[in-house]
Amino acid sequence: MKLYDLVLSGNCYKVRLFAALAGIPVEIVPVDFLGGEHKRSPLIDLNPWGELPILVDGEVVLRDSQAILVYLAQQYADAAWLPRDAAGMAEVAQWLSTAANEVQNGPASARLIDKFGYPLDKADTLRRSARILPLLEAHLRRHDWLAAGHPTIADCAVFPYVALAHEGGVALAPYTHLQAWIGRIKHLPGFLEMPGV
Amino acid sequence: MKLYDLVLSGNCYKVRLFAALAGIPVEIVPVDFLGGEHKRSPLIDLNPWGELPILVDGEVVLRDSQAILVYLAQQYADAAWLPRDAAGMAEVAQWLSTAANEVQNGPASARLIDKFGYPLDKADTLRRSARILPLLEAHLRRHDWLAAGHPTIADCAVFPYVALAHEGGVALAPYTHLQAWIGRIKHLPGFLEMPGV
Repeated sequence: MKLYDLVLSGNCYKVRLFAALAGIPVEIVPVDFLGGEHKRSPLIDLNPWGELPILVDGEVVLRDSQAILVYLAQQYADAAWLPRDAAGMAEVAQWLSTAANEVQNGPASARLIDKFGYPLDKADTLRRSARILPLLEAHLRRHDWLAAGHPTIADCAVFPYVALAHEGGVALAPYTHLQAWIGRIKHLPGFLEMPGV
Repeated sequence: MKLYDLVLSGNCYKVRLFAALAGIPVEIVPVDFLGGEHKRSPLIDLNPWGELPILVDGEVVLRDSQAILVYLAQQYADAAWLPRDAAGMAEVAQWLSTAANEVQNGPASARLIDKFGYPLDKADTLRRSARILPLLEAHLRRHDWLAAGHPTIADCAVFPYVALAHEGGVALAPYTHLQAWIGRIKHLPGFLEMPGV
């Protein structure tokens, strides 16, 4: 099983982190992102969206970090990481949407601007960050984990770009419960770091 | 089972549409959106995000239209709508992320500006639309349905705001395969309309 990867990508890190936490062996294939390798064949044929990560497991080819987490959890991990009952699965799915939208277009995009010079609207990314972080804080004031009362792929999907928010000029200082949650994740057995986290 | 609903919301329509297609009885509870009912108790206690739809099924309370589709499919529908195997489920999950991010921030947000006067960046929504619609078109050139070779909740999640794109000034004329897919969805048994679709 191959993960086409960029070490500085929080989206790739979601997958590396979960694979490490769940003990799933994945071969990391570094991609020459600055050289545009993901925009050319053969990678663009695996993912026409021209994005990383990409997971290839035999016949299975997947784009989108959230979908890759779903696949790895459902195929290879203990059911605790993605509950099989409808209510538990949907509770996790709520946070996968949050990771795909609010976190991606908030703190993750602020970081893309500051760290990599992407031509995005910084004020918009800060507005979105200022909305999602208090919602996360309020949730984590009452819960140790995002869903199901224990670590799930929801935590793996949301954690990276929240923990990297400082690289986009977004301070976590006001959010003490969010910081405590980051600390809990960092103490999970098998936790894997990335630069900036 | 209650769906707190706004008839003009494409996100609410995702749920109404899927419930109709899968024959799941849901009690529709209209919300006074313009009056801000969703921003006050008791609705804000059900969904601190202050958004619709909200689903309440006994003890289960869910925000986020994608997560609600996952719940209804897993709990009440034939497995065809959300495959239970890891590869099929992840294939669907890819498109749930697309609905939550690229479609929401592209055509759906263009419509929010034109139809409801939201203070968003129109140029940004058009740029995002101009990226996602050709990707959808290319996919639908080779597939009749978004995932799994048959209708799934992926189609229900992506369809509404694509079919409503004209209300945000986004023309679908260049996308013939996408139009054909819209036609296929409209011919599914049990299909439900909404204003503008």
